[in-house]
Amino acid sequence: MHGVGLGPGDPDLMSVRADRLVRGARNVAFFRKAGRAGRARAIVADMLRPDVAEIAMEYPVTTEIPLDDPRYNACLSAFYADAADRLAALAQAGEDVIVLCEGDPFFYGSFMHLHVRLTGRVPVATVPAITGMSAAWTATGQPITWGDDVLCVLMATLPEDDLVRGMDGADAVVVMKIGRNLDRVRRALDRAGMTDRAWLVQCAAMPEQSVTRLADFDGRTVPYFSIVLVHGRGRRP
Amino acid sequence: MHGVGLGPGDPDLMSVRADRLVRGARNVAFFRKAGRAGRARAIVADMLRPDVAEIAMEYPVTTEIPLDDPRYNACLSAFYADAADRLAALAQAGEDVIVLCEGDPFFYGSFMHLHVRLTGRVPVATVPAITGMSAAWTATGQPITWGDDVLCVLMATLPEDDLVRGMDGADAVVVMKIGRNLDRVRRALDRAGMTDRAWLVQCAAMPEQSVTRLADFDGRTVPYFSIVLVHGRGRRP
Repeated sequence: MHGVGLGPGDPDLMSVRADRLVRGARNVAFFRKAGRAGRARAIVADMLRPDVAEIAMEYPVTTEIPLDDPRYNACLSAFYADAADRLAALAQAGEDVIVLCEGDPFFYGSFMHLHVRLTGRVPVATVPAITGMSAAWTATGQPITWGDDVLCVLMATLPEDDLVRGMDGADAVVVMKIGRNLDRVRRALDRAGMTDRAWLVQCAAMPEQSVTRLADFDGRTVPYFSIVLVHGRGRRP
Repeated sequence: MHGVGLGPGDPDLMSVRADRLVRGARNVAFFRKAGRAGRARAIVADMLRPDVAEIAMEYPVTTEIPLDDPRYNACLSAFYADAADRLAALAQAGEDVIVLCEGDPFFYGSFMHLHVRLTGRVPVATVPAITGMSAAWTATGQPITWGDDVLCVLMATLPEDDLVRGMDGADAVVVMKIGRNLDRVRRALDRAGMTDRAWLVQCAAMPEQSVTRLADFDGRTVPYFSIVLVHGRGRRP
């Protein structure tokens, strides 16, 4: 079995290995929200074999359970266990299976919840990929880090004080999973004195990509996969 | 002109776009140490056109000048300015030029010193790539970050106190440019209480790749491009 990182979204930015695995795959598994096409599946839409078997792993609807309720974790855990069982059974029957992963499989993301449940049961190889944050800083046309810059990667879902602490200790900052948390990220950047250096990248490496200085952006909500960046200013001969 | 990220070292992990650009390139520029073949050039050894024109940009020998001596920066600055002039002249003469970059061009590395000197003179497109750190954590077979983990990326060339500060504020840690700085990194990990969770990855995604728990590694010097990792332990349903 392979966990295949697809990168930030443009099929042209998939690795040569991922491209080959996707085009040759007999069984392709991917996560999606119920009723949606699935973002990972959309990236490879024009690449799959005509006789491919698709395994859609649909997230249970959890919007009615708060994130900190133990039932939320229990519900997700049962979902991942069930999905891992399905894939393990296929692999044990001799089928080759690839799991499509947005971004890099071992850098945040969902595949790792399968991986931890499959390890020791079936051989699983993981193919790394270009991260969404690499696509985002490339889209700004400026290097994210120079020389000995310290880079801190933060999730916008963290409490404001944690965001400020991470920003204060860093020369360069990446904040992911912006979505509805943009106001909190703005407040944290203000407290860290970084607002005037912050950029907002929406849909990096996708046709609808947009790059703006955060100070010039009036909106309060952006897509979940948006990224806020502060570039380092380290040693540059 | 293109700055093309080649990824961690395995040509199979280059992006489809980078693969196409390298195979089609008429002019290929790359940095190397004087007298060496060049690491970036080695990655694409079997991919270049027979009629390719190679532009080797050889770093000036600077080992006799301390890093903090202003002459060090002046020497490197003149070198980058001269290299940028050569490439700009080629591009202005209508030639297509690609600059080979190990790893991701805008994530530490040398290409950015050309990029900043070429911007506004000739059009330069940058192709992102899989970072060496992605290859390193993939090699450990474990995800680097889960849930809301804070990731801190540090250069081993930093003072010990700066390393400890970065580690203390993070759930997951990547330390790059290990080389002769391994002892200092060990001391910092000890002070941060992370030694028993630390891994050493040498030559990730290359044939000579080696992955060991840092505690099991007796050596005091490793290749410059080695990476030390501490995995996050965040939310995992």
